[in-house]
Amino acid sequence: MTTPTKILVAQGGGPTAVINQSLAGVVLEARKFPQVAKVYGAHHGVRGIVNEELLDLTQETSHNLEMVARTPSSALGSTRDKPDAKYCHEIFEVLRAHEIGAFFYVGGNDSSDTVRIVAEEAEKANYPLRCLHIPKTIDNDLVHNDHTPGFPSAARFVAQAFAGANLDNAALPGVYVAVVMGRHAGFLTAASALGKKFPDDGPHLIYVPERTFDVDQFLKDVKSTYDRLGRCVVAVSEGIHDASGAPIITKLASQVEHDAHGNVQLSGTGALADLLCEEVKNKLGIKRVRGDTFGYLQRSFIGCVSDVDQREAREVGEKAVQYAFWGETNGSVTIKRTGFYSVDYELAPLRAVAGKTRVMDDAFLNEAGNDVTDAFRLYLRPLLGSGMPDAFRLRPNAVPKVLNKD
Amino acid sequence: MTTPTKILVAQGGGPTAVINQSLAGVVLEARKFPQVAKVYGAHHGVRGIVNEELLDLTQETSHNLEMVARTPSSALGSTRDKPDAKYCHEIFEVLRAHEIGAFFYVGGNDSSDTVRIVAEEAEKANYPLRCLHIPKTIDNDLVHNDHTPGFPSAARFVAQAFAGANLDNAALPGVYVAVVMGRHAGFLTAASALGKKFPDDGPHLIYVPERTFDVDQFLKDVKSTYDRLGRCVVAVSEGIHDASGAPIITKLASQVEHDAHGNVQLSGTGALADLLCEEVKNKLGIKRVRGDTFGYLQRSFIGCVSDVDQREAREVGEKAVQYAFWGETNGSVTIKRTGFYSVDYELAPLRAVAGKTRVMDDAFLNEAGNDVTDAFRLYLRPLLGSGMPDAFRLRPNAVPKVLNKD
Repeated sequence: MTTPTKILVAQGGGPTAVINQSLAGVVLEARKFPQVAKVYGAHHGVRGIVNEELLDLTQETSHNLEMVARTPSSALGSTRDKPDAKYCHEIFEVLRAHEIGAFFYVGGNDSSDTVRIVAEEAEKANYPLRCLHIPKTIDNDLVHNDHTPGFPSAARFVAQAFAGANLDNAALPGVYVAVVMGRHAGFLTAASALGKKFPDDGPHLIYVPERTFDVDQFLKDVKSTYDRLGRCVVAVSEGIHDASGAPIITKLASQVEHDAHGNVQLSGTGALADLLCEEVKNKLGIKRVRGDTFGYLQRSFIGCVSDVDQREAREVGEKAVQYAFWGETNGSVTIKRTGFYSVDYELAPLRAVAGKTRVMDDAFLNEAGNDVTDAFRLYLRPLLGSGMPDAFRLRPNAVPKVLNKD
Repeated sequence: MTTPTKILVAQGGGPTAVINQSLAGVVLEARKFPQVAKVYGAHHGVRGIVNEELLDLTQETSHNLEMVARTPSSALGSTRDKPDAKYCHEIFEVLRAHEIGAFFYVGGNDSSDTVRIVAEEAEKANYPLRCLHIPKTIDNDLVHNDHTPGFPSAARFVAQAFAGANLDNAALPGVYVAVVMGRHAGFLTAASALGKKFPDDGPHLIYVPERTFDVDQFLKDVKSTYDRLGRCVVAVSEGIHDASGAPIITKLASQVEHDAHGNVQLSGTGALADLLCEEVKNKLGIKRVRGDTFGYLQRSFIGCVSDVDQREAREVGEKAVQYAFWGETNGSVTIKRTGFYSVDYELAPLRAVAGKTRVMDDAFLNEAGNDVTDAFRLYLRPLLGSGMPDAFRLRPNAVPKVLNKD
């Protein structure tokens, strides 16, 4: 790349609280390189590329980029399109038409697979294109990564939400079931454990897709906790399934929606929480049973972000540009943990990351499959960042009874 | 009250983010008074009183009280019990047995009515008891108050949630419906409007219980917004009802739960959001339709609080103690707005506040009944406090198309 070239950046899949940090990382770093003539962004991911809906980010102020970086959700817009070979060929044709020399795609495992196929198209056509995948997903399910940008901030939201929900449940006791995003990986649901301070705090039970969900065992677990504490706070992944692998939600929903990937719609409905609450009410006879579904708040709530996540999301964007211009290969930027707490970045082959799904290590889950271990707490805590709010309680100083009517 | 007396404080109804500020306000202020021998707290509101489950708050450190003040939810525990005359008599008997000279109850309109009846019991028995109601409710529906402690923080949560949900919906367009707490008063749902920055930002439609909800009109409104912007973000109060006054949720739910007050259970279920989403999908044929129910997060999320709300919640607690010992009557502490932005406190007769419900002024709602006015924005903005997060977007600098395939 001796003559200045144009580069293109896009954002794919579900938005996160810090995906714009990666965008800003790419744009601000790339604009320092003499090798870069223009920095383009595509509206709504790969769909914006094939439709030629491009934005000239060379004409954006650094100040506004910094402000956008702190704004959650994908500033360029996103898409759920999963490109096949033909779609990837169309992407490549647009990149060629605009003389793009490097393509940066911020996204999860589907997006990394798109980058891989586009890179292969370019190679076939003998067109010089550097292709970089920049990791992002609140699911934390990319292989070869200690964790993925977006997850720490979503985890922080979930931990804070459960810290508050636990306090609410302690004030007005009953059973509380909250459903957290996560189709195959339970990391985000497991983050609920970091909302716990005192031994009797909730969440008392945590169910993730890495383990089979048995409704009868769930009811036994709830009953045992309720009998012991007079209340019970439960965290459940939207992706929990029975022994056959069938999502628990399909047992209830009359109409089930499927996305372009053939996946059942799990988010954007309160059905699973309501189903589980009905089971508890009907089978255990507990009166006050409440269900919440954290829904889109957990990935897009403004004002709940991990500073560690912000920093790392920025850095993976920066590193992608450095790898593109100082390195020699395409690849996916990955995060390696090097200290407690410190990370470094490496470039993995696209093929090593693309389309693969990471799930929680066995060491992170207890034997009963209804809670996390201290190993998981130690893994997650530094990612949540500084300034985590803390919950305090009054110390017990009982007043002796006078009437003693009981 | 010339000889030192004991005082009792309790918290009733739904928890808020700042109800412990009022508790700390009472305890810390009361402990300065030579007239006060002991400061007791009751566990779980009036239920803890009749059960003699009392806590000696004179033995709590000031430091821990300050930490508890910053912790959301009711540190003493709460209750949904609505005392009748007999129950109030039992409360009074316990107060008399423990030689309580002043009773402070932090709560909403039901709690203020309890304070009123207990005060009447004491008068009948010729027992010297000073009774103070301290305002609290995220519903903002107490009469004689400019607003009520707890509402500003919940409103801040709702505004931040919609700011984020709007960004998420802009990135992945479709229809998004979020259900906000509020049975009779729409203040909290209306707070969603403060999440809006640019003219095309959501929420594009806001429906509150102050207006009749017509499903056909709702669908027309959604269609018109969707046709114009390609997306639509909707805020809906859980208490929306049809022309006959029947809650919209009862049109769906097969089993409807009632509380001690005979109210239909609206919170702790995602049914209303799911019902409205189904309507949009089926009648308008829009594919990507998502529903969220903010549930308990809006009143208990830790780490989203208005500093104005914290300060005022502390002050109403402090003022209650001052009124009890320097004033001459029972009453309910009320908040008056005196500047932009400044407040003062007054003591209203218990009878003036007790059991009454305030709803939104007509001036706060637009004519179509599907949005708020600037008068409401001006009313609410100062309450949200300092440091509200802000959303930024990229400026439009379109790259000319090269292929122009369309």
